Amino acid sequence: MPKNQCKNNKIKKISPRSLKKEDSIETVRHSLAHIMTGVIQELYPNVKFGIGPAIDNGFYYDFDFSEIKVVNPKSEIRNPKQIQNSNNQNSKQEFKLSPDDLPKIEAKMRELISQNITFIKKDISQTRAKKIFTDQPYKLELIKKINEKSISLYESGNFVDLCAGPHIKSTSEINSKAFKLTKIAGAYWRGDEKNAMLTRIYGLAFETEKELADYLKQQEEAEKRDHRILGQKLDLFLIDPTVGMGLVMWQPKGALLWRIMEDYWYQEHLKNGYELVRTPHIGSRKLWETSGHWGFYNESMYPPLEVGQTLKEVQENKKPNVKEEYLLKPMNCPFHIILYNSRPKSYRDLPIRWAECGTVYRYEKSGELSGLTRVRGFTQDDAHIVCSKNQVKEELKKVALFIASMLKTFGFKEFNVYLSLRDPKNKEKYAGDDEGWKMTQKVLREVAKEMNFNYKEEAGEAAFYGPKLDFKIKDCLGREWQCSTLQFDFNLPQRFDMSFVNEKGQKEKPYVLHRVLFGSFERFIGVLLEHYAGALPLWLSPEQVWILPISSSHKKYAQEIGKRFQASGFRFQVKDENETIGKKIREGEMQKIPYLLIVGDKEIKAKTVAVRQRGKGDLGQMATDKFIDIIKKEIASKK
Amino acid sequence: MPKNQCKNNKIKKISPRSLKKEDSIETVRHSLAHIMTGVIQELYPNVKFGIGPAIDNGFYYDFDFSEIKVVNPKSEIRNPKQIQNSNNQNSKQEFKLSPDDLPKIEAKMRELISQNITFIKKDISQTRAKKIFTDQPYKLELIKKINEKSISLYESGNFVDLCAGPHIKSTSEINSKAFKLTKIAGAYWRGDEKNAMLTRIYGLAFETEKELADYLKQQEEAEKRDHRILGQKLDLFLIDPTVGMGLVMWQPKGALLWRIMEDYWYQEHLKNGYELVRTPHIGSRKLWETSGHWGFYNESMYPPLEVGQTLKEVQENKKPNVKEEYLLKPMNCPFHIILYNSRPKSYRDLPIRWAECGTVYRYEKSGELSGLTRVRGFTQDDAHIVCSKNQVKEELKKVALFIASMLKTFGFKEFNVYLSLRDPKNKEKYAGDDEGWKMTQKVLREVAKEMNFNYKEEAGEAAFYGPKLDFKIKDCLGREWQCSTLQFDFNLPQRFDMSFVNEKGQKEKPYVLHRVLFGSFERFIGVLLEHYAGALPLWLSPEQVWILPISSSHKKYAQEIGKRFQASGFRFQVKDENETIGKKIREGEMQKIPYLLIVGDKEIKAKTVAVRQRGKGDLGQMATDKFIDIIKKEIASKK
Repeated sequence: MPKNQCKNNKIKKISPRSLKKEDSIETVRHSLAHIMTGVIQELYPNVKFGIGPAIDNGFYYDFDFSEIKVVNPKSEIRNPKQIQNSNNQNSKQEFKLSPDDLPKIEAKMRELISQNITFIKKDISQTRAKKIFTDQPYKLELIKKINEKSISLYESGNFVDLCAGPHIKSTSEINSKAFKLTKIAGAYWRGDEKNAMLTRIYGLAFETEKELADYLKQQEEAEKRDHRILGQKLDLFLIDPTVGMGLVMWQPKGALLWRIMEDYWYQEHLKNGYELVRTPHIGSRKLWETSGHWGFYNESMYPPLEVGQTLKEVQENKKPNVKEEYLLKPMNCPFHIILYNSRPKSYRDLPIRWAECGTVYRYEKSGELSGLTRVRGFTQDDAHIVCSKNQVKEELKKVALFIASMLKTFGFKEFNVYLSLRDPKNKEKYAGDDEGWKMTQKVLREVAKEMNFNYKEEAGEAAFYGPKLDFKIKDCLGREWQCSTLQFDFNLPQRFDMSFVNEKGQKEKPYVLHRVLFGSFERFIGVLLEHYAGALPLWLSPEQVWILPISSSHKKYAQEIGKRFQASGFRFQVKDENETIGKKIREGEMQKIPYLLIVGDKEIKAKTVAVRQRGKGDLGQMATDKFIDIIKKEIASKK
Repeated sequence: MPKNQCKNNKIKKISPRSLKKEDSIETVRHSLAHIMTGVIQELYPNVKFGIGPAIDNGFYYDFDFSEIKVVNPKSEIRNPKQIQNSNNQNSKQEFKLSPDDLPKIEAKMRELISQNITFIKKDISQTRAKKIFTDQPYKLELIKKINEKSISLYESGNFVDLCAGPHIKSTSEINSKAFKLTKIAGAYWRGDEKNAMLTRIYGLAFETEKELADYLKQQEEAEKRDHRILGQKLDLFLIDPTVGMGLVMWQPKGALLWRIMEDYWYQEHLKNGYELVRTPHIGSRKLWETSGHWGFYNESMYPPLEVGQTLKEVQENKKPNVKEEYLLKPMNCPFHIILYNSRPKSYRDLPIRWAECGTVYRYEKSGELSGLTRVRGFTQDDAHIVCSKNQVKEELKKVALFIASMLKTFGFKEFNVYLSLRDPKNKEKYAGDDEGWKMTQKVLREVAKEMNFNYKEEAGEAAFYGPKLDFKIKDCLGREWQCSTLQFDFNLPQRFDMSFVNEKGQKEKPYVLHRVLFGSFERFIGVLLEHYAGALPLWLSPEQVWILPISSSHKKYAQEIGKRFQASGFRFQVKDENETIGKKIREGEMQKIPYLLIVGDKEIKAKTVAVRQRGKGDLGQMATDKFIDIIKKEIASKK
């Protein structure tokens, strides 16, 4: 059973930020992309080139192999050069690069690197560039988009690429033991699904062999913790194309985990002075026009539902006689504001703190979807705080504390704070005036400082309606996950003409804070699963204890213990199917059950249970009372 | 404060079923519709007639007044006869009947009735009928639809109507003190919103004056209990046209009531061997085609969401390049079945009982929407039970018992059971073969009998996928509300190719039961509010106690009591605003708070609280401990 690696500190945390000479390794990565492409050109002369930048931890390059044909894809001849002259046109099939081809490409790259090939920059004219890349349609497309007269190329050995650089001087700068080609994936040209699908080859590259080895080890650990695989193994959730990609269905154990989290969340919200509200999943288009979502956010929204036309008309494709249009909600805010506006409010009513676990729908591109962490439907643990100007700082701080305490309870001791600001160069992407942005950004910055957060500022990361503080969780592999956020809104109060009567009897405009603690249940559960490698703490485990009778004569005793557990409110199962005890234990370990209790003749006689704790193994016999006491304490500790 | 009339039995339960001579009163009602129309014809000669049947408790008739003009609607001349000859065309406006006109019409009806007018039936030819109704377009439309050669008319005094009868012989059969015209409403011709909007006049009619008086009193009581008014007064929910009609938003107190109900519901489901699942609100069109909803149920569904086209394309009204179509779910079943099918199942896994409070969307016509009881988005307290053939009867009975116990806990002691069967004349409206329908209807009938339900059979009321037992709650005014239902499904298992491996190792098809206990949270809360006239039992009240300090010097004591209540988990408020105690008490009574505790000098000295119980008034002083004990017991009793 995989132990909780996080506690054991077996994994060294590596992040690209820790590399000393970031700039130089970035240049090495970019140059490796050119070297790889030179090799590909040599092996597959008819290949067309896309682009190939350096990325975090490595590089990639995109290729179009569609003009390369192979006679028989099953034959072992993988080098299409040998096939080019074949006249057997009929049996030609499109060539497809295989992961098995990568070591060969890598070997040829090392060969080139050892030749100390130099990178030479050349500036040439548009006309000359078009001639050089005459049979490279993707490069020609790029050249046309360049507005400057002079175009920059890089030559390395026999390979020439359209490139602004910079590059290393010579391949002697590359540590040829510290790179590795890792995988092949499909990628649309320029990321647009309307364009051709190209073949992308990814590589890793670091300064030292050790860094590469550490990174690979970390990746391996991350794969073990992949929530998509764990979700399947532990039978927590299902994403099925029949229903739709990015739409999560929760199996009983997953739904139970959700309920446990939601119950805790709700109790904490009551303690923190929140009330619940509840709103529908669709609202009229008018509502979203008023809120500004339709104007500023529609690229992320599902298209309108047009009602008023009969379904028969839709089926027959008749021009719809549109009477009403509804939109699936991408956010809960406008509904909460309509509730606020439904009755006059006074300063005595503020601050109002209204929470809702509201399921929202956003249309993400299919290529961006990933398990629970990037979905099309998700449940925000949302709340809106409506308050007066003199309450706003206090409320912001309260939320920041609430976020920190919630994250801690769920096992995330560390998080990074980002102050997300408006992009001053793209003001048209945001609602509201300069003054409002200036003020709200200033207040959020003050809050971050006064809370002693070690925060970073990020321009262009604000919501369209205001600046925000984003809390990115660090999981036990050191990876960052954007979950909690606290947003400051001065726009929606204006757009919906919100008001309250202040102490002087005058109408005043309130501020609205938007906040989520988990972010969404889906993503937070995904991150939890990865953080704990599926071995959730006892208080969160959908199944806390399995009672395993050794043989059928021990079933009765197992069931008696079950009755006591029921009375204590534990989540348990008596596994009394006719399987060997060994098989039951293995199954329990696979399912990451926190406690397995084995009961046989010995335990019946001594009125005990034999306890196996997840990650710690056999704890020996224990009186049932004592076991109940121990796990009651463990559940209450939330550890 | 309105008392809980139900407990006091002040209201006599009246239902149309209790009338002795139902047939004869129905005929009287129908004849009254004719008498009324005769009067209307005399008062407004250019009026066009729609239809006018007897209905429960009375009758109506539809009129088209559009050809009647009045010179000045503000003038007191309401009889358009006097205006007809006026030449002042410009100032003519369309005539609109007012409720003030009803007493006059009623008086003229009584005049006619006292003349012992006879009803004479005549059978005439189509041609002759068309001549008689030459200036009555609605009647002509009806005549054209009659396929028989001979057409039946009824004459009563000067009025002739196209009518199949039967009618009374003479108006001497009418008790002219036992009828009353009640209201005017708009109604589309033939109920189709594409047709003209007509004016409908409603009347009540009974055999005796007392029955009429009792009915009016019951109506008055029903109005006091109207959940739409109560929802507003108690600030529970909001339906706002900016969001969309039929889409309910829950204010904090309403959302809290919901949460209390849902928590109880969840605990009861755990006890009854259910597990939770959780599914999205949209699913691909393919899913709904497989389930049969798209084929059999699409008239109640929202049209498809077409994704793949960009929103810009939608906005510019370009022909969509449809890639995927999603539908808002009208039911949860297909998702639960996909979850079931995601892993192989064995007989050891059955019965599976999966519950979900799932919000579904159905496109009801705007004219059919009503408060919480008829909406477009609602949350079913749904569950699906998947079981083998030999488990099905036992499971059906368990659900029936569960329904009965749940209804009882919520205060509904009585319910009527209906066995809803397929309409044998419209088999094409249902999925599945004759054999399946025969078997499932037989089993449900056996269950109803063995449970000793006094049930009624209703052909044509089954779901498209199978027969069902409907439980209609009787509220304390004797009104019936369809809430709980238990449905037997043999179709979806076939359509989705569900299976399990039975004891013999063979693949077997399971049965699926669909069931809801509340029906929907929205409707059930609506019915609860009407049943209790808003005075919810203590365990359900969003606010259980208000503590009312008499003056500011008593606030501290009130807050101390509050702290003790907090520790006991009561839902309370300390009302310490600077208002008179009288005003606070009135407000508490208006808000139907179960207990109001008044604290002043006397109470502080004696360490007591002065208790006012809702509906019972002043209970005098009481030690705080004693009060806490009393209400703890009351909460636990759920009464």
